[in-house]
Amino acid sequence: MALLTDKYELTMLAAALHDGTADRRTTFELFARRLPEGRRYGVVAGTARFVESLPQFTFDDDALGMLAEFLDQATLAYLASYRFGGDVDGYPEGELYFAGSPVLSVHGTFAECVILETLALSIFNHDSAIASAAARMVSAAEGRPLIEMGSRRTHEQAAVASARAAYLAGFTGTSNLAAQRRYGVPTMGTSAHAFTLLHTTEDGPDELAAFRSQVAALGVGTTLLVDTYDITAGVANAVAAAGPDLGAVRIDSGDLGVLVRQVRAQLDGLGATGTKIVVSSDLDEFAIAALRAEPVDSFGVGTSLVTGSGAPTAGMVYKLVEVDGVPVEKRSSHKESHGGRKQAHRLAKPSGTIVEEVVHPAGERPAAEGDLVARPLAVPLVRSGKPVADLVLADARERVGAGLHSLPWHGLKLSRGEPAIPTRMVPLRRG
Amino acid sequence: MALLTDKYELTMLAAALHDGTADRRTTFELFARRLPEGRRYGVVAGTARFVESLPQFTFDDDALGMLAEFLDQATLAYLASYRFGGDVDGYPEGELYFAGSPVLSVHGTFAECVILETLALSIFNHDSAIASAAARMVSAAEGRPLIEMGSRRTHEQAAVASARAAYLAGFTGTSNLAAQRRYGVPTMGTSAHAFTLLHTTEDGPDELAAFRSQVAALGVGTTLLVDTYDITAGVANAVAAAGPDLGAVRIDSGDLGVLVRQVRAQLDGLGATGTKIVVSSDLDEFAIAALRAEPVDSFGVGTSLVTGSGAPTAGMVYKLVEVDGVPVEKRSSHKESHGGRKQAHRLAKPSGTIVEEVVHPAGERPAAEGDLVARPLAVPLVRSGKPVADLVLADARERVGAGLHSLPWHGLKLSRGEPAIPTRMVPLRRG
Repeated sequence: MALLTDKYELTMLAAALHDGTADRRTTFELFARRLPEGRRYGVVAGTARFVESLPQFTFDDDALGMLAEFLDQATLAYLASYRFGGDVDGYPEGELYFAGSPVLSVHGTFAECVILETLALSIFNHDSAIASAAARMVSAAEGRPLIEMGSRRTHEQAAVASARAAYLAGFTGTSNLAAQRRYGVPTMGTSAHAFTLLHTTEDGPDELAAFRSQVAALGVGTTLLVDTYDITAGVANAVAAAGPDLGAVRIDSGDLGVLVRQVRAQLDGLGATGTKIVVSSDLDEFAIAALRAEPVDSFGVGTSLVTGSGAPTAGMVYKLVEVDGVPVEKRSSHKESHGGRKQAHRLAKPSGTIVEEVVHPAGERPAAEGDLVARPLAVPLVRSGKPVADLVLADARERVGAGLHSLPWHGLKLSRGEPAIPTRMVPLRRG
Repeated sequence: MALLTDKYELTMLAAALHDGTADRRTTFELFARRLPEGRRYGVVAGTARFVESLPQFTFDDDALGMLAEFLDQATLAYLASYRFGGDVDGYPEGELYFAGSPVLSVHGTFAECVILETLALSIFNHDSAIASAAARMVSAAEGRPLIEMGSRRTHEQAAVASARAAYLAGFTGTSNLAAQRRYGVPTMGTSAHAFTLLHTTEDGPDELAAFRSQVAALGVGTTLLVDTYDITAGVANAVAAAGPDLGAVRIDSGDLGVLVRQVRAQLDGLGATGTKIVVSSDLDEFAIAALRAEPVDSFGVGTSLVTGSGAPTAGMVYKLVEVDGVPVEKRSSHKESHGGRKQAHRLAKPSGTIVEEVVHPAGERPAAEGDLVARPLAVPLVRSGKPVADLVLADARERVGAGLHSLPWHGLKLSRGEPAIPTRMVPLRRG
């Protein structure tokens, strides 16, 4: 696990151990300089995976052997006994975030904090990108169930984290079995064209035989895939095989809006009025929104979910902001950082609609303004290396729902636009 | 490992075991219906990871316990003893591919082949997307070294596979230490802004102290990051700390073209004529090409590499094409498949420049045309479940180089366009 790290973190560590700066007390903050282009909000995801990874972030003998190629003995000795012993605060998982939101703050010695950079960023950049895209799909579906089925379009382990992030953001379940085992995400399944094609003999295709077989093995509640050959014949075969109590049919190609209406009418005409219609086939939040007026019962989403629907990474960075109590910041053009340890409050109207994110120097809570309610955003996650928060996926899922509910109306628009609320950076008072 | 699977594969398996079709002899083919929009070629990657994963694709007691929630005893018994025992043929890793190229062909019973779908697609869709983007960057860099440093922008395990795919496509190395351990990819490192910022005291920043420390620990051959504060002062401090034999400076922000020329002149003026310049900062193949005329010595590439530079997944599918010797294909609109087991030859002029990809029914080698040379593309990868090919990363790397060399001139253009060569699908002769 600890080798999921960029080489320069360990060479920097070596230099800092060498010159005595490794023990300086530091704060690193993880944040996105901006939301992906045109996005109106982001959803924090990865917090639990990050906290749970900390105890496994250790260097075994094998790893140390490899590192001995370029690290000195003092650095190797430090790594051999490495355990993160600092503190972490952060936005709870499922919270909305905006440009500059200090999503995670890591406090400890330079040595113990710097080497977490790559792992922390990998987890948050991936999981938040997926959860942020998923939340847009959830809001586009307006309550209809979404099934995550994108495992095959992304790295096999990213697939598991994607399924978790989608569920966190409000998807109903996933096709990925490892996500059920690892995170308790409900799994769902339909059928594939291969199963229908398998029932081909020298006499030709036999869709009815395939459907009868599936129903015999899995019951009438199963979902039959009706578009391998001709959809109208497929629906007829499906009801012939399962009867009018058939659970669902799935359509995975074609002009879904038109097909769904036809299939609904055909099912109803056959008495299968309770049979649901699942659609899939390159759906994203825009395609889902376009199908809102159609009799779709649930959506299967693959590629666009696991690729963040155009924003496959959240673009978060992990920056040193304080050293021994002194704020630090770089001045590179377009990559300025804001020095000093920060906290954030989100301001909302009494109705609950949010109006502004205020990021301010730690301890300097913004003054109340009018009847706005200021809610602090960070919670303690780790103290002296030990997890202190109850990181429950169901809570994160509820938090996403509450967050979407708190957005002003334009914040839920799918079109490209400005962030739903502005971020106000309260500058440090220079002493 | 075996739970990195979509649920429907196992329910289809259950139904096929139930009705006796599970033992039918099948061929599944893995291919891309089209290249990502505007791309002129793709690079096959993932072959070795897939073949190496086969022996680990087994179901342990824990997994079977979870699967017992929805699978019958016969299916569980099948999975308990599952080992892939079929054959696999495929394009060697690093080979170019085009629309319809049968990149992988998996032969065996329906049962043993169908459940590999998700894993195979995850690996090929991820790794090929990264390698295909990386190859464009390599060709844009025209021989100058590229370092992969995108681990932090993608899932932590996808990062390791990305580093491997980038190296396969011709990158010089990676920052990812796990990629060195797992795949022998050379690792490289520079320094981060955090190290310079760390050397801040109550008296203010001290870049020179940071550089002196890094040189003391890592030698004058190290790479100093000069853009934390002011680049001109940074370069002066760098040469003051390391002397004119400094290995390299890195610039990570600003207008790189202008800065690189200034820094080169400044370094030369200070006598550091051998000091290299490394640039990074949101580089992609277009930015790399735009810097070709500048005195850049190497490129660090992050986000755009690990996100496939706009095409984060290769869009490959895994389709059943033959059952007990009978070709099968679906007829869904826009998702037609071509039935029957296929092979491919690539036609080239005597000069080596390729002109066409011919995908034809297995065993029906296309007739020679004029002086064109037809090269068969697939090689045996697995026989009766055992790997039979020597899958060496260095060979794949050479293959990418040869493939790029074989493209017609317009195939290397970075702009959006048609595939470099057309794919000709030779239809089955219907009996």
